[in-house]
Amino acid sequence: VSENRSAALPDGWLDTMLNPRAVAIVGASDVVRSPGGRIMLALQKYGFKGHILPVNPNRTEILGYRCFASLAELPETPDVAILVVSAKASVSALAQCAELGIHNVIIGSSGYAETGPEGAAIQSELEAIARANAMVLIGPNTNGVINCTSRFTGSFTPALQQDSYELRDGPIAIVSQSGALGATFFYLAQRSGLGASILINTGNEILVSSEDAIAALVGPDSPTQVVLTYTEGLRRPSELIRAAELAHLGGRTICMLKVGNTEAGAQAAAAHTANLAGEDRVYAGVLRQLGIIRANSVTGLVDIGRVLAAYGPQIGHRLTIASMSGGLGIMITDLASGRDIELADWPIAERAKFDDWLPGYLSRANPIDVAGVPFFDLDLLEKLVRTIESNPSSDASVLAICNFEQLQESITKRLIAIRATLHKPLFVVWLGGDEAIQRLNAAGIPAFPDADTFVSALAAITTRRAGSIVSVRRSEPVAFQSEPSGAASAGIAADPESALVQSYGVNLAVSRTIDSVTEVEHALRDLRLPVVAKLVSPQVLHKSDVGGVLLGLDTAAAVAGGVETILSRASALGIDDARVLLQEQVPAGLELLLGMKHDATFGPVVTFGLGGVLAEALDDVQIRLPFIEEADIADMLAGLTHRKLLSGYRGLPAAEPAALAPIVLAFCRMIRAVGDQFDAIEINPVVVPIDGSPPIGVDLLAVRRVRSI
Amino acid sequence: VSENRSAALPDGWLDTMLNPRAVAIVGASDVVRSPGGRIMLALQKYGFKGHILPVNPNRTEILGYRCFASLAELPETPDVAILVVSAKASVSALAQCAELGIHNVIIGSSGYAETGPEGAAIQSELEAIARANAMVLIGPNTNGVINCTSRFTGSFTPALQQDSYELRDGPIAIVSQSGALGATFFYLAQRSGLGASILINTGNEILVSSEDAIAALVGPDSPTQVVLTYTEGLRRPSELIRAAELAHLGGRTICMLKVGNTEAGAQAAAAHTANLAGEDRVYAGVLRQLGIIRANSVTGLVDIGRVLAAYGPQIGHRLTIASMSGGLGIMITDLASGRDIELADWPIAERAKFDDWLPGYLSRANPIDVAGVPFFDLDLLEKLVRTIESNPSSDASVLAICNFEQLQESITKRLIAIRATLHKPLFVVWLGGDEAIQRLNAAGIPAFPDADTFVSALAAITTRRAGSIVSVRRSEPVAFQSEPSGAASAGIAADPESALVQSYGVNLAVSRTIDSVTEVEHALRDLRLPVVAKLVSPQVLHKSDVGGVLLGLDTAAAVAGGVETILSRASALGIDDARVLLQEQVPAGLELLLGMKHDATFGPVVTFGLGGVLAEALDDVQIRLPFIEEADIADMLAGLTHRKLLSGYRGLPAAEPAALAPIVLAFCRMIRAVGDQFDAIEINPVVVPIDGSPPIGVDLLAVRRVRSI
Repeated sequence: VSENRSAALPDGWLDTMLNPRAVAIVGASDVVRSPGGRIMLALQKYGFKGHILPVNPNRTEILGYRCFASLAELPETPDVAILVVSAKASVSALAQCAELGIHNVIIGSSGYAETGPEGAAIQSELEAIARANAMVLIGPNTNGVINCTSRFTGSFTPALQQDSYELRDGPIAIVSQSGALGATFFYLAQRSGLGASILINTGNEILVSSEDAIAALVGPDSPTQVVLTYTEGLRRPSELIRAAELAHLGGRTICMLKVGNTEAGAQAAAAHTANLAGEDRVYAGVLRQLGIIRANSVTGLVDIGRVLAAYGPQIGHRLTIASMSGGLGIMITDLASGRDIELADWPIAERAKFDDWLPGYLSRANPIDVAGVPFFDLDLLEKLVRTIESNPSSDASVLAICNFEQLQESITKRLIAIRATLHKPLFVVWLGGDEAIQRLNAAGIPAFPDADTFVSALAAITTRRAGSIVSVRRSEPVAFQSEPSGAASAGIAADPESALVQSYGVNLAVSRTIDSVTEVEHALRDLRLPVVAKLVSPQVLHKSDVGGVLLGLDTAAAVAGGVETILSRASALGIDDARVLLQEQVPAGLELLLGMKHDATFGPVVTFGLGGVLAEALDDVQIRLPFIEEADIADMLAGLTHRKLLSGYRGLPAAEPAALAPIVLAFCRMIRAVGDQFDAIEINPVVVPIDGSPPIGVDLLAVRRVRSI
Repeated sequence: VSENRSAALPDGWLDTMLNPRAVAIVGASDVVRSPGGRIMLALQKYGFKGHILPVNPNRTEILGYRCFASLAELPETPDVAILVVSAKASVSALAQCAELGIHNVIIGSSGYAETGPEGAAIQSELEAIARANAMVLIGPNTNGVINCTSRFTGSFTPALQQDSYELRDGPIAIVSQSGALGATFFYLAQRSGLGASILINTGNEILVSSEDAIAALVGPDSPTQVVLTYTEGLRRPSELIRAAELAHLGGRTICMLKVGNTEAGAQAAAAHTANLAGEDRVYAGVLRQLGIIRANSVTGLVDIGRVLAAYGPQIGHRLTIASMSGGLGIMITDLASGRDIELADWPIAERAKFDDWLPGYLSRANPIDVAGVPFFDLDLLEKLVRTIESNPSSDASVLAICNFEQLQESITKRLIAIRATLHKPLFVVWLGGDEAIQRLNAAGIPAFPDADTFVSALAAITTRRAGSIVSVRRSEPVAFQSEPSGAASAGIAADPESALVQSYGVNLAVSRTIDSVTEVEHALRDLRLPVVAKLVSPQVLHKSDVGGVLLGLDTAAAVAGGVETILSRASALGIDDARVLLQEQVPAGLELLLGMKHDATFGPVVTFGLGGVLAEALDDVQIRLPFIEEADIADMLAGLTHRKLLSGYRGLPAAEPAALAPIVLAFCRMIRAVGDQFDAIEINPVVVPIDGSPPIGVDLLAVRRVRSI
């Protein structure tokens, strides 16, 4: 995995940053329009527990606090300094921090790398100072951090200036590359009644990246259960992998909203925080592999946070829907279909439990149609919820409500009263029930204003895979198989790339490459007939299109004739750099593709999906880091758009994870060992033969990395 | 198009139903728990302008209104009677209405076809009475209708019982098959400040279907501009087509939330209102063709209604995003990508307009990053909005805001103040800004709580096609081409299905089907060599899989040999019913599929998409009613998942709408004329030849409808 720079953060750095005994605000003021004013106002309003040390040469007092002309005049060395001065002035301020032994600095100004070369130069100066002095630097271009426990509101977000804003501690923490959005997530979490303990906005990430912050938050001693994070692009992916492993081991959950997923969005992201957004399906695969839940919208991220805070990530798949409106029940059913949510089974015996109170004309099949009955009589509502709980085939339930806004208070009161005695997750969808939603959320019953937001949040959690990556990475390093498993070395050697791939145990059809027909006899010493002859030339992309592939050559004479044919066709086309690959013919079968490419963010990643001539046209692959196990193969196959073609389509064999594991896992081992040496490797097709023999790679294309000196 | 029954609604039926001078409520009471009580309470509360005539044998007065023991005792004949008695009692009540000359009846009870055979029998009795007496019947199993103008709240939805509920007239009407959801849409429309004039809940639709109601609402004299409708399945699709045509001609817009789109959802829909949900992609294609906008969620439907009410359906595609948060701008960009929304171009000269006030470090590229600048100074906010308006490349704009909740009142006030002087649509996304969203919506500036809901609503409108169906249908009837365009009739005739298809001008490869090799010479009189020989047998589904296809037979001898080979192969496989089709060989090319199937809701529909051997595997087709023109062909091609394969992939020709129009439009003409006689027709492949010759159909499969006597 490629990194922009090495980690240099001391243990416990985040604790110090979030719980300073004293904080200096360089650029402090008392006006709400200025960042330094907003920080002062927030620290005062929310009751920061440490010392507040404003620094401003033009003031002697701000909001009742003594103001200092410079950092040098401070009566004590603050644990944290927040710099909210111009970009240029921040350089000398940071240097002064270093001199004075202030190790933790938050730089809130804008005007750095996000603005162009001039700003980038200033940013480099900051970086040099911070590194030389082993400082912990958040930013620049951050709007800061918030910690509920210490009441440290080191953030100039205007959101904190709201009269009605109250900080409510909670089990979730928020890490955001965007200042504005981080503050918004924090606000939405507070307002929904969920609460949030910590907000960290990492800005331009000279030193502290969002991945660093996440890893610090999911460590074994952290009180954080859920990290919600907003990302435009990763600078230290290995730290995210470490964070995912820590989260997995500690039972914590990370949920990410990743933007810049489209070309247009990626361009906008580059203009915003100079971030490389990366290919979306690489992120999709890697996050899935890491057990990181992915959100698709701002409110969606907070929704998932609320569900995780209420019930944790282990929510069963079998949902019971009880709906006031039949239509709303259908809608939830539609939305759940095709995602990892099933309708819980309601056998006749379980349905009979409703007979003493639910009118006969209402459907007891799931979705259960309860009409207004349990809302006019709340004892029946409780009965409904408990009856659903008593069905052993139901893992979780949702009450779908509308048109009872007049009874919001009493209905929610009753639900909240029984919440503590429920053993399975209960959700509420209440169209138009804003007040009820607010109350229920605050009481830990996740409630939603529409069917789609509910299903999205639940499905995001039920489709999550607990990261298998931990066990795979623990099993490293895998022994390098130094003895090539290919055929004897007499005769013409296989090309070095094939030999390398085979040396890792990847099953490749045996082949030899020759320049002319005179070498046929020599080459055939190592090959079993029949063979296939294929044109090899850097000038030809699709060799079958130019008649460059001949199949079923089953005698030495036929091979010689085939080689001559191919070379003369090439010559007729004006191709001067032509060779011929002779390869043992592989039985017909299902054609897959197994490849590696070098992702700009994550380094070597594995691609696996549909192969053969349609590979390029359908472009249907799943992508993962090369740390995978058999279960990941099944997951990748299930994630393909055209998976129908892989389950025994028209007489072709099915793609079975167990049968594919040897070749795919061997390929991954190879990528882990030598992936850095290649820009791309592609084996297409990997044939799953009809005759039941093991999957075998046919065409290998390997592009060595060219490193500039 | 198939129909459940004939239309029998008099002109102006809806007017009478919505504006009764007097209404009888059979089953009236004064308790909120009973439907009859809720209707009485609502009529009183909202000030119904007509006479209220409660009917209940046990009461002499209800809520101050004189109560009558039976319909027969009423002092006047009401225009409308609402029956909220048991299902059984409703039959005699309806009969009494008929006797007394009460022509318009709303039956609110449940317990009919939605509950099983017993209820269905009662429903049949209602239907018989209504038809025999030419009544206009809404329901049963409806919760009624609401009309703001007459204050006729003939609905027992509990939503109306809310203290704070106010009826606000507006340009939209709501038609819903679900009572609970209809009431919810109406409530959400009211609460959002949009207002809504009319709610019609059609329930079990004995007589009045939702399609009838929609058609009545979009007629030339209706004040309704937008109809929002909720559908579980259509009973009178031809009326929806008529409604779409009326809407198109009158500049009105219909927007539909259709549920039961998945197998599980369709099952739930059947249990709810006994509706046949139908195949989702048929609905997708037909609604698109009809110019009906499709919504995906409850709030999404109301969102689209708000945008349509504010700006109508003609909103340009080029969007400018001005965002307080760079991240939020990226998110909107991501979401817009791949839908019919482009980022408006901001050339350097236009960008320069921001230089006098927007700090240099903020991006002027679209999305424009404005940070907090225009929110701290509202003159700059107005400047921002007007500058965006002044860019001729921008059709519409969105302000994306967060963290300024403290300034919600002043910011919205300023935006509302300038709204009237703006010439282009302005939208607001305000994360966490509930109060602002409410105010802006009420003032006709559509505002949204998240990026995804905004983009979904806008894209639903910009991707809409104005229904071409009107002009196509007006051009009917097309002259039937009675002279077959195929080859001479000497020799063995083409099979009757091929002849029929060709007689409509569909370009099919000439073919003859023979039983034995002795007929080859005879058949070749009509065929140009080379020909293809294909096994024809009802016992063989994939003839190429059993060696039943031989290509390039270019002499009579080769043809004879080929026919023998195929017949002996068939015989070896134990196929006793085998014939051979000889067909002029079509040049290689791009392979498409053109077909017809009989949809349970819409009757004969046309399928068009990827053909060849992959047709079944990829199942990538678009579906339309057979009323299409050339522009629809382009639209269908653009809607295919694998459209990449159709734009000149690896040397294949591109699929050009103009070149395809003759064969596709001829096929549609045929379907319009004789589609009823077939269950299915499939031409696969339709080849677009590499040599530039016209697209031509190769294999034809036609399944005649078998009608039970």
